[in-house]
Amino acid sequence: MTGQATKVVALCGGVGGAKLAYGLSRLLADGELAIVVNTGDDFEHLGLHISPDIDSVTYALAELDDPERGWGRRGESWRFMEALGELGGETWFQLGDLDLATHIERTRRLAAGESLSSVTEGLCRKLGVRARILPMSDASVRTVVESDQGSLAFQHYFVRERCAPRIRGLHFEGAETAQPTAAVLEALSSDALTAVVICPSNPYLSVDPMLAVPDLRQAVAAAEAPVVAVTPIVGGRAIKGPADKIMRELGHAPSPLTVAQHYGALIDGFVADVRDASGTDAGAYPTPVTFADTIMKGPAERKRLAWEVMCFAESLRSPA
Amino acid sequence: MTGQATKVVALCGGVGGAKLAYGLSRLLADGELAIVVNTGDDFEHLGLHISPDIDSVTYALAELDDPERGWGRRGESWRFMEALGELGGETWFQLGDLDLATHIERTRRLAAGESLSSVTEGLCRKLGVRARILPMSDASVRTVVESDQGSLAFQHYFVRERCAPRIRGLHFEGAETAQPTAAVLEALSSDALTAVVICPSNPYLSVDPMLAVPDLRQAVAAAEAPVVAVTPIVGGRAIKGPADKIMRELGHAPSPLTVAQHYGALIDGFVADVRDASGTDAGAYPTPVTFADTIMKGPAERKRLAWEVMCFAESLRSPA
Repeated sequence: MTGQATKVVALCGGVGGAKLAYGLSRLLADGELAIVVNTGDDFEHLGLHISPDIDSVTYALAELDDPERGWGRRGESWRFMEALGELGGETWFQLGDLDLATHIERTRRLAAGESLSSVTEGLCRKLGVRARILPMSDASVRTVVESDQGSLAFQHYFVRERCAPRIRGLHFEGAETAQPTAAVLEALSSDALTAVVICPSNPYLSVDPMLAVPDLRQAVAAAEAPVVAVTPIVGGRAIKGPADKIMRELGHAPSPLTVAQHYGALIDGFVADVRDASGTDAGAYPTPVTFADTIMKGPAERKRLAWEVMCFAESLRSPA
Repeated sequence: MTGQATKVVALCGGVGGAKLAYGLSRLLADGELAIVVNTGDDFEHLGLHISPDIDSVTYALAELDDPERGWGRRGESWRFMEALGELGGETWFQLGDLDLATHIERTRRLAAGESLSSVTEGLCRKLGVRARILPMSDASVRTVVESDQGSLAFQHYFVRERCAPRIRGLHFEGAETAQPTAAVLEALSSDALTAVVICPSNPYLSVDPMLAVPDLRQAVAAAEAPVVAVTPIVGGRAIKGPADKIMRELGHAPSPLTVAQHYGALIDGFVADVRDASGTDAGAYPTPVTFADTIMKGPAERKRLAWEVMCFAESLRSPA
C-alpha cells in the first residue's frame, strides 16, 4: 500500500476521534484511508513506551475496544495491576493484562531499532487492521501542560491528576524539530485525496500536538482536498474528556464556534452537531458549516457520520 | 537485620532448593536465616530483568508458589501471554500476569539505579518474606551452556530448547570478576553460624554459578560452621530437572556420590536419600554422609528435612 491511492486522511486523537476513524474505515477500501495519529501523549511508564492514542485507534479499528469503559481492550482483566499494587508499584495508570502485551511488544521492537511507524504497522497487521494508522512522527513530541500546579507531563495531568489542575497553556516538546513521517506526507499529497478530516478529538490536547509539527501543519494546509473538522463540543460540553473545561480555563466559551475559530484558516468546512443548529449564526464561522448527529453511540452511527463528513467535503470540492 | 545473628546460610537455586529453604525458614527466627540465591540464570527478556531463582525462592517463602506446576505463582493466569502471542511476540518463556508484575517492578527499580539486592529486599518485604533472600552478587553473572548445538544462553538451553542439547561444558560469564554482596559475606562470617546448607539444587546449573564467584567460594570454605550439601539425585534420577542428564553428558554416573565428589573438599557432610542407603559405600564419600527422605512433597516434609539437615550439621560441629 502506498499513499498514492489515499482518498481520505483523518487526523485523530484517542477515543473520540477513533470512533469517526472507525466509521471511515468501514466506508473506504483498504489503502484509501490514512489515519494520522497524535503521539504527543505518548510516554514512558514502568519502562514501557505507551502510545495511548495509537492504541485507542488500533483497538477501535480492530473492534477490540471496550465500548463500555471507553478506553483499552474489551474483555480486559487487571491481574497484573493488582499484583503490581501488592508489590508497591505505581498503579495510577491502569494497564490491563491484554493491553500490556501491546506495550511490551512495542517497547521491545523500538529498543531493537524499529521506528514507531514500523512497529505500529506490524501490530496493526497482526490485529487485522487494514487502514493505515500512521504516527504523526517517529520523533518524540511530548505534550506538557502548564497549570496552576506547575508544568505537568501530559499523562500526569490527564490520568494521574484527572484533569483537575487549571490549564494556563500547553506546549509540545520536540514538535518544532519533529518531522512528519514520509507516509504521512505522502498520504496528504495523494492525487486521489478527497478529504482531510480533523476528527472530533480534543483540539488542544489531541490535534494541536499534530499541528505543532511545522511540516505536518503545512502539508495539511497545502492538501488539495477540503479540510473538514468535526466538533467535539455539543451543547456546550465535550462529548468526552476535558475539552470544555480547558476552553473555559483558556478564556473561551466552550462551543463549536470556538473550535472552528481555533482551527481558523486551516479548515475549509466545519461539522457542528444538530443539537447546536438552532441559534447558530452560520455567518460567524470562518468556513461553511453543516450540522450532523456527531454523538456516535454504535458502529452504525460511526459509519453514518463518516458518510456525512465525506459528503460535506465532496460538496466543498464542487461548489454549486 | 544484620548478618550478625545469622545461624544458617542456605545456598539455593530455584524450585528444588526453594523447598528446603522454605523448610528452614519455618524453623528459624527472623534474621537467623540467610538464603544466598543463584543469579546465573537471570536474563533480559522482552526488556525485562528476570531473576528466575530469586523469584522461585521468594514465591516459595511467601507461600505464593504453585505446588502443582512447580514454578511461578499459584492462581496464575496467562492473558498477557495469549495477547502477546496474537501480536507475534516471543512466547517461549511463559510469563504469567501476576509474575509479570515482579519483573516489571524489578526492572523499573534497577533502571532507577537500585541494586538487585535492594530490589529483592523491597519485594520480599512487600510479600511478607522475613528470611533474607540475598542475590549472590549485584554484578551480572550469566551461565552459558556449551552444547552440541553451540553456546547457548542459559534460558535458551533450559526453557526454549527444553534441555535437549547435549552439554559439553558450562561457563559463567562475569563470575571471575563478580563480588558477592556485603550481606552475603556478612552472613557467611556470622559468629552465630551453625550450618551452611547447599540445597538440593542442580550442582552444575544452580550451585556452580555461585561457587564460580571466587570470594563467595572462599567465604563458604572459610565459614566456621559445617557445610552440608543435600542430594538432588535420588535413585539415579534428578528429583526435578536435568541434573541426571547433565551428569551423564559430562561423563559421570548420576548418583549422590557424584554430587558429593563434585563438591569435594568444600563440604563437611552430605545428605543422601534413604532410598539410596542400601548399597551405599559410605567410605567412598569424601565426607560423613547421612540419609534422609529428601523428597519434599509438602510443607511438613520441607520442615522435617530442614530439621534433619540442621541436626546433621550440629552433629558435625560436636563430634562424638
